[in-house]
Amino acid sequence: MMAKTIRLHHGSGGLLMQELIRDLFLRYFDNPGLRSLTDSAILPLNSAQIAFTTDSFVVDPLFFPGGDIGKLAVCGTVNDLAVSGAVPLFLSAAFIIEEGLSMDDLETIVKSMAKEASKAGVSIVTGDTKVVPKGKGDKLFINTAGIGKIEKKYAGISHGLKTKPGDLVLINGTIGDHGMTVMNARGNFHFSSSLESDCGSLNKFIQKILHNSEGVRFMRDATRGGLAAVLCEFAEKSGYGIEIDERTVPVKEEVNGMCELLGFDPLHVANEGKVVMVVEKKYVEEVLCIMKRQNQGKKSAVIGRIVEDHKKKVKLRTVSGGSRWIDLPAGEQLPRIC
Amino acid sequence: MMAKTIRLHHGSGGLLMQELIRDLFLRYFDNPGLRSLTDSAILPLNSAQIAFTTDSFVVDPLFFPGGDIGKLAVCGTVNDLAVSGAVPLFLSAAFIIEEGLSMDDLETIVKSMAKEASKAGVSIVTGDTKVVPKGKGDKLFINTAGIGKIEKKYAGISHGLKTKPGDLVLINGTIGDHGMTVMNARGNFHFSSSLESDCGSLNKFIQKILHNSEGVRFMRDATRGGLAAVLCEFAEKSGYGIEIDERTVPVKEEVNGMCELLGFDPLHVANEGKVVMVVEKKYVEEVLCIMKRQNQGKKSAVIGRIVEDHKKKVKLRTVSGGSRWIDLPAGEQLPRIC
Repeated sequence: MMAKTIRLHHGSGGLLMQELIRDLFLRYFDNPGLRSLTDSAILPLNSAQIAFTTDSFVVDPLFFPGGDIGKLAVCGTVNDLAVSGAVPLFLSAAFIIEEGLSMDDLETIVKSMAKEASKAGVSIVTGDTKVVPKGKGDKLFINTAGIGKIEKKYAGISHGLKTKPGDLVLINGTIGDHGMTVMNARGNFHFSSSLESDCGSLNKFIQKILHNSEGVRFMRDATRGGLAAVLCEFAEKSGYGIEIDERTVPVKEEVNGMCELLGFDPLHVANEGKVVMVVEKKYVEEVLCIMKRQNQGKKSAVIGRIVEDHKKKVKLRTVSGGSRWIDLPAGEQLPRIC
Repeated sequence: MMAKTIRLHHGSGGLLMQELIRDLFLRYFDNPGLRSLTDSAILPLNSAQIAFTTDSFVVDPLFFPGGDIGKLAVCGTVNDLAVSGAVPLFLSAAFIIEEGLSMDDLETIVKSMAKEASKAGVSIVTGDTKVVPKGKGDKLFINTAGIGKIEKKYAGISHGLKTKPGDLVLINGTIGDHGMTVMNARGNFHFSSSLESDCGSLNKFIQKILHNSEGVRFMRDATRGGLAAVLCEFAEKSGYGIEIDERTVPVKEEVNGMCELLGFDPLHVANEGKVVMVVEKKYVEEVLCIMKRQNQGKKSAVIGRIVEDHKKKVKLRTVSGGSRWIDLPAGEQLPRIC
């Protein structure tokens, strides 16, 4: 049964959000494009296929080390297209501005969007501006929707249907950097930290892998809900179990420290420049090598594998030698992280 | 010079918004798709052309006679595609929800989106949900982006390049219904009124005209900024003058009455189911007939013409026999109308 009112956790990327999507949005909007619930809808158009995705950004604060809401709005949507196997081409940008936002801040953000778009090789082709009275918004929300071109051979990659037990799970670097950076930037905790958000467009990084190896069977960017959400959702969807080795999951010492102090699990903390890949075993060295040769993949690692056992469940082998189940978080401790 | 902070009028569809678009968004995002500043970007994809558009909806209140924010979010984007000569196919839907919104209200809105999408023949294929804490939003904002297929022969219609002096200006019914309905629904004025918003998808209405006549040279839906904004922008863009005969512009008595009391000009009040068409003279009877045969065009009328004189300016012949210039409003008196 659904809650009677919307709670913060309905937007967390966890269980409550899944429930909302299933019991409300999917129930009324049902159609093949939406039903797959992948990051982008894969759609037939003009005898070819396109990927189409949307994301609203409500991050607080607007500026944080390593990025801002504008950069985030571009790379978030670029990444949703890229992990669907698409080449991102066109973005829309829609601004909901609270009256009183400084024009300088808006300009800095717009500049940052333009810079990231140019880096990713996409054009911002259409837009919209709404202004709401003071107190009816919070400085700035940005929505970006995106369209990408998808080659037929990659169209199935966001479903991961070819995944088999024995495949390995890879990630392109340290987890939790974005979430902890934004939290730190809120200034409640005064950690002195050189930590930066990993916020960045992964499309060129991913294209290089896809063009140079046939090994990738599934990929997804780990954003809201963190690495845990991607793994749990993929286990559920594929029907297989996943085993992760905690010792191999890259986490910065600072992130680990902040998480310990605050009682967060780094596996649940948001990233904005991390992609999880499921790779056929015999291609793993090849893929890892292509990843590590690129800036965004220097700390890439094999962190686990797909297994026949404990179907639809994700098991973590802990540093101490024990093991525990990883669950989709019911809600997230960090609202407005993206 | 731009203002130092964002004001409500920056979102009004008037002069300040044009300035913001030109001096900020266009300056940094510049590219051919965006530069035309049409309702949809017309883009090459897979050796064909698509139309791509986005709109955020922040209407207050969420429910009003004749519609709600959900219906509006679907038909607003459908109409932006349709007036570009495109057949709308796919929509995205992104929700920014304020914590505490009642699930019943959200369900009613989602249902209404599904109903309008089905009526218009489009699928909502991808989405996003964000929740912001109480006081950081206002119940619900919805963004929809949309993709349409565009036949080559209609690709120029949103630019109106073939327009010539002597062409006539048509509209498909009464103006100002939406704006006055929403204002009335805010409950500040207690007009007893049977007035309803004209909010509805125009794609089938428009397709019928395009498929049965070759006369349409330009079209645009008259939303924020009203009929005046469409006319002023088109005069500016085409380089011609436009002359409008006030006696022929359909306005409901109630809307006229409310406007007089409140000091509004119906020409500036928002519509959500009205399209302005510029039609070659010899096709006018044919087009008018196709319009009037359809429910959404029963009150269609010829309201003016394109002229060689007063280039880039719009002149209104008033009911009293005089004349006055119509200007793009600097701001709008009615924020959050869509």
